Amino acid sequence: MIRFYAPDINTTGLLPEGESGHAVRVLRHRPGDEVEAVDGSGTLYRCRLLDNNHRGAAVEIVERIPLPKVWKPYITVAVAPTKHADRMEWLVEKLVEIGIDRFVPLRCERSERKELKHDRIEKIAVSAMKQSLKAILPRIDDTMPLKQFLGECAVSSNQKFVGYCDADTPRRLLAKAYTTGSDVTLLIGPEGDFSPAEIKACLDARFTPVTMGDNRLRTETAALVAADTIHIANQIFS
Amino acid sequence: MIRFYAPDINTTGLLPEGESGHAVRVLRHRPGDEVEAVDGSGTLYRCRLLDNNHRGAAVEIVERIPLPKVWKPYITVAVAPTKHADRMEWLVEKLVEIGIDRFVPLRCERSERKELKHDRIEKIAVSAMKQSLKAILPRIDDTMPLKQFLGECAVSSNQKFVGYCDADTPRRLLAKAYTTGSDVTLLIGPEGDFSPAEIKACLDARFTPVTMGDNRLRTETAALVAADTIHIANQIFS
Repeated sequence: MIRFYAPDINTTGLLPEGESGHAVRVLRHRPGDEVEAVDGSGTLYRCRLLDNNHRGAAVEIVERIPLPKVWKPYITVAVAPTKHADRMEWLVEKLVEIGIDRFVPLRCERSERKELKHDRIEKIAVSAMKQSLKAILPRIDDTMPLKQFLGECAVSSNQKFVGYCDADTPRRLLAKAYTTGSDVTLLIGPEGDFSPAEIKACLDARFTPVTMGDNRLRTETAALVAADTIHIANQIFS
Repeated sequence: MIRFYAPDINTTGLLPEGESGHAVRVLRHRPGDEVEAVDGSGTLYRCRLLDNNHRGAAVEIVERIPLPKVWKPYITVAVAPTKHADRMEWLVEKLVEIGIDRFVPLRCERSERKELKHDRIEKIAVSAMKQSLKAILPRIDDTMPLKQFLGECAVSSNQKFVGYCDADTPRRLLAKAYTTGSDVTLLIGPEGDFSPAEIKACLDARFTPVTMGDNRLRTETAALVAADTIHIANQIFS
């Protein structure tokens, strides 16, 4: 069964406009039909359609089924967008599939792309959430300057790791440096790498420099592999 | 410096046609210029161009630098191609980046796509090999029927794991089932899942059913995460 995304369903009792149109006009649902919706906050709703308003279909909630996230730590992935937006869209899809909690696009000195379209990224995240049968949508930030993000991180108790190419700093293997069970912030540099000043700022904000192995990975691959490393390390030691 | 792919350079002393054209016509290299080439078998060649023949530029090999693979086990990934070829192309790029030894596209009962274009896939693999600074190209098989692949696997001493959606069989977590250091075959079912007969055939060929966690992953995501799990497990226990 197709699941709709209805973040406010519990208070409004409505499917949002886009989803209502899809339900009523495309799928031809009629009053009395059963539909399922997720709120992006961890609950699946079994509902019955009350009308066929394509701008906001009213539903009766039949059952609320909690679908909490299946991983324990809070995982934040912050990454400088790549030149080609499709590589970022792909990354967001895959991150949502494997499961993360927050995605932060960063503006760095050598960023090839200064901005990610938030609406487009969120749409991809919603689609990946539905497809992977989750009910939780990661928080997706607007693109923010690296400095602002580091300022925020300075007061966080997460384990913090930064991946970049400059080989002058000694780096640990993420799989070994991460303490399983810990909330974690993973920061991945842009295609042109961080500037020396940015690397210093990351170290000052107590990020540990890491590699994901002896491979040179593209930005989006590094971000996905880093997040996956957290999951696998937690699986191995659970 | 751009690296060329020249599988036969050691015997022919030539760059192949496509690479010669790129070197001579696009990059405007001239006799005497230094170029680098990899042979896909683990060696990087520092060369000097002897002529500017765009159909097969002759080179003098200045230095042979062994670039062995950075992971230990032999990793085979066999997967039924997805309906959309771009998802497979993406998968091959990422698998080559993180490092595998062999890629086998499979034809299954419920395969949405019966054939992958071998040339196109190899081209993507070559490009990912160059981009990730490797000198080893994974073996890429022609699409073969699942039955043929299982027949071949029956005599292999690899650890063998199969991932699929049908939840009737008890499954282990791949991260825990894999013995680090072992050569491994990872088999991932098609978007429409294996048929019951195919699952039985996999079990008969001594494949262990696994999951990559409590997430429903797309075919291409499952294949990448499975390969990555092998790397990370080996990193953690190295």
